Amino acid sequence: MKNMIPVAMSNRHIHLSQEDLDILFGEGYQLTKMKDLSQPGQYACEEKVDIVGPKGTLKGVRILGPVRTHTQIEISVSDGFVLGVKAPTRDSGNIEDTPGAKIIGPKGEVEIEKGIIVAARHIHMHAEEAKQFEVKDKDIVNVKINGPRGLIFNNVLVRVSPSYALEMHVDVEEGNAAAIKNGQMVELIK
Amino acid sequence: MKNMIPVAMSNRHIHLSQEDLDILFGEGYQLTKMKDLSQPGQYACEEKVDIVGPKGTLKGVRILGPVRTHTQIEISVSDGFVLGVKAPTRDSGNIEDTPGAKIIGPKGEVEIEKGIIVAARHIHMHAEEAKQFEVKDKDIVNVKINGPRGLIFNNVLVRVSPSYALEMHVDVEEGNAAAIKNGQMVELIK
Repeated sequence: MKNMIPVAMSNRHIHLSQEDLDILFGEGYQLTKMKDLSQPGQYACEEKVDIVGPKGTLKGVRILGPVRTHTQIEISVSDGFVLGVKAPTRDSGNIEDTPGAKIIGPKGEVEIEKGIIVAARHIHMHAEEAKQFEVKDKDIVNVKINGPRGLIFNNVLVRVSPSYALEMHVDVEEGNAAAIKNGQMVELIK
Repeated sequence: MKNMIPVAMSNRHIHLSQEDLDILFGEGYQLTKMKDLSQPGQYACEEKVDIVGPKGTLKGVRILGPVRTHTQIEISVSDGFVLGVKAPTRDSGNIEDTPGAKIIGPKGEVEIEKGIIVAARHIHMHAEEAKQFEVKDKDIVNVKINGPRGLIFNNVLVRVSPSYALEMHVDVEEGNAAAIKNGQMVELIK
């Protein structure tokens, strides 16, 4: 089948800067890889933290590695209600004017000023695949999901990089709204 | 605008039979209306119950009135993971071969054999509106949601009855996946 892409659901998670990791887990702390993710070099860690917002707490939020330049928390819309923050839908890395929170680790706490987003649905792909699908980096496409909860996601961002493996990412609410199973094939339509 | 319909998100809830209500709240118990829902004659009640599945519990699930012939529990896919049951996507009332659970009220407990569903997205409308939209009862249509999380819901069931008010119903995960606000207008497309 043409233009088929595997899809994966992302649960809430956090990316930490080394500076914040040091405060939360101790100076010079190294993250412990639990398992590799589909994107090369990315991995889920054994370590978890609590995220505290004005209205409530998300306990045991998993850290994804490796460390990044800026700490970023990716949640669902429902998680935002639990925390009591209004997180905008954003592409990863675009955290200007987003809400912050308190992060609690085993060795310390960090208050971040910004960094909470609802991740915009997107497709990772390699340049070879972009060529095959006739799309380019930053294109906005549509993706069709079949089945009893079938739907067409509009506003799906294409992200092309030599370091990416082909995969569409949605959050848990988007996945459940479409009754998606991880690894299911979905169709890119333009 | 043509073919525009207000949309509302349904949180998890339970409909009870009088028999089960009697066991959970005491013989001859009458539900206490908290507020009317948009569908004529339907209302949210002050009363709540706990739902216990093989893996976990949903606490404080609101009862919707009036009582029905059969007890039915409507949950999200995520709620199913909490309970540890695999609830199928079904139209309301179609509860054959669905999982059951234990229901705990202030005066007793009921073990139901079946009745847990994930409600299929649907549109309620009056015959006059069906005529205007050129659809009929049990038609399957598509509904377009605009905005940053815009999408097109396929497999949307049309339900026509003299007792219905015009409204599309989705669950919380479907609503959040599309960044829907209650009362927002969405577009019926065929």
